Amino acid sequence: MKNPVHKQKLYVIKIGGHVIDHSENLHQFLKAFVGLEGLKIIVHGGGKIATQIAHKLGIETNLIQGRRVTDLESLRVVTMVYAGLINKNIVAQLQAIGCNAIGLSGADSNSIQAIKRPIQEFDYGFVGDLTRQSVHLEPIDQLLKVGLVPVFSAITHDGQGQLLNTNADTIASALAVALSDHYETALIYCFDKKGVLRDIDSEKSLIPEIDAAQFKSLKAQGLIADGMIPKLQNAFEAIFNGVKVVYIGLATELDQVGHTSFGTKLIK
Amino acid sequence: MKNPVHKQKLYVIKIGGHVIDHSENLHQFLKAFVGLEGLKIIVHGGGKIATQIAHKLGIETNLIQGRRVTDLESLRVVTMVYAGLINKNIVAQLQAIGCNAIGLSGADSNSIQAIKRPIQEFDYGFVGDLTRQSVHLEPIDQLLKVGLVPVFSAITHDGQGQLLNTNADTIASALAVALSDHYETALIYCFDKKGVLRDIDSEKSLIPEIDAAQFKSLKAQGLIADGMIPKLQNAFEAIFNGVKVVYIGLATELDQVGHTSFGTKLIK
Repeated sequence: MKNPVHKQKLYVIKIGGHVIDHSENLHQFLKAFVGLEGLKIIVHGGGKIATQIAHKLGIETNLIQGRRVTDLESLRVVTMVYAGLINKNIVAQLQAIGCNAIGLSGADSNSIQAIKRPIQEFDYGFVGDLTRQSVHLEPIDQLLKVGLVPVFSAITHDGQGQLLNTNADTIASALAVALSDHYETALIYCFDKKGVLRDIDSEKSLIPEIDAAQFKSLKAQGLIADGMIPKLQNAFEAIFNGVKVVYIGLATELDQVGHTSFGTKLIK
Repeated sequence: MKNPVHKQKLYVIKIGGHVIDHSENLHQFLKAFVGLEGLKIIVHGGGKIATQIAHKLGIETNLIQGRRVTDLESLRVVTMVYAGLINKNIVAQLQAIGCNAIGLSGADSNSIQAIKRPIQEFDYGFVGDLTRQSVHLEPIDQLLKVGLVPVFSAITHDGQGQLLNTNADTIASALAVALSDHYETALIYCFDKKGVLRDIDSEKSLIPEIDAAQFKSLKAQGLIADGMIPKLQNAFEAIFNGVKVVYIGLATELDQVGHTSFGTKLIK
């Protein structure tokens, strides 16, 4: 920790539904991911598949302020879809292109322990919040050290036998922050846009760099809204807590990282 | 390998549907499992949950000679249920009682690579068969060495991106055989009976020890039939290929292993 020269480079890369839901995008992303030099971790959410399967099973999906309310039935669905279907397919695809991936939930090797969100104004059900102590470095370090590439689904546990649904953006940020003690960490949020856009309908309005003051101003003007707000909050959380670089950009352009400009870069 | 004195003890324990489907049985089994001294691995199947969920999703379950035919839709269901729902719940419960479990499919760290069953008389679909080369010792060794307890779901991969449904009894036997090169391995099949019974309706007819000749004779008499035949074939495969001890017995009595008699012991 005293000598940053010796820190190995580590990428923590989050992918969301628009990558996962389209097999061609996913394949293109995974190829670019494998091409990145250094240690790497993927964090993935669930996309539309969880909602579709819940619907087919007759389970209603409730959202409060954009966040899924996770009753016991919904928890079963997200555990199946995130930690099973999506996670194992990503791992098998990575193995096929020579990347020694290992799929994990936070329960596996107790890598991420969350706290069930307390009931205040709303009851979000089996949703896990992360604290500064949630990410356990040792088990993740052990896997990285033997050359494995962890693939985290957005499922954690409370240490008492209860699985919890946890926001994938938050997991990615918490992992990047915790791992920046041991590694020179880059956090990349991959999604279906070129990056942070001034005008959501125009890719030409890409903001190449953004700092906290600009974020505040764009938010006040209503130009950054909805799901982009918590994503950027997680991203700034990372850059202000030891993560070396943070980008938000297009999943299928991940191969540009380190070569040309990629998405929106966060500035302290 | 030359000096068996230095081999560490390793348990490979398979649990089936009757344990998984009943939370009290599962809890009792997991407590007994954690109490076993030595390195340990769990292999689990799926139980009725996969069939119930497939039914709810409108996917028909076809069996040929007691084996599930795994079309693409069925593969999605077993991947969700085995590698997601069941696997992560077992891992979270083990973590809660102080056991540092890590859930795996064969794709994870490329631990078990199978071959899609060739189409002959029947097309079983996405079913994976194991060969002598299927179990990769190194990644499993690495996890055991850092104190982790692998929990395998009955999902493997072909190394080319395709997940495959593989019989859990066969996985347990193949793991025990492969690991017996490095460890003094005990394989235990836990299910809902006291062991191999002469009369399936009477627990008093337990056969405490069985050798291959007795198995052949009991099979010829029709006293051993159905699912018990492949289970015993897998068990004998293990005992004749380096596994030190093999038992078949009641999951909820696992705490008796090493203390009093447990189930049916296989004899070479």
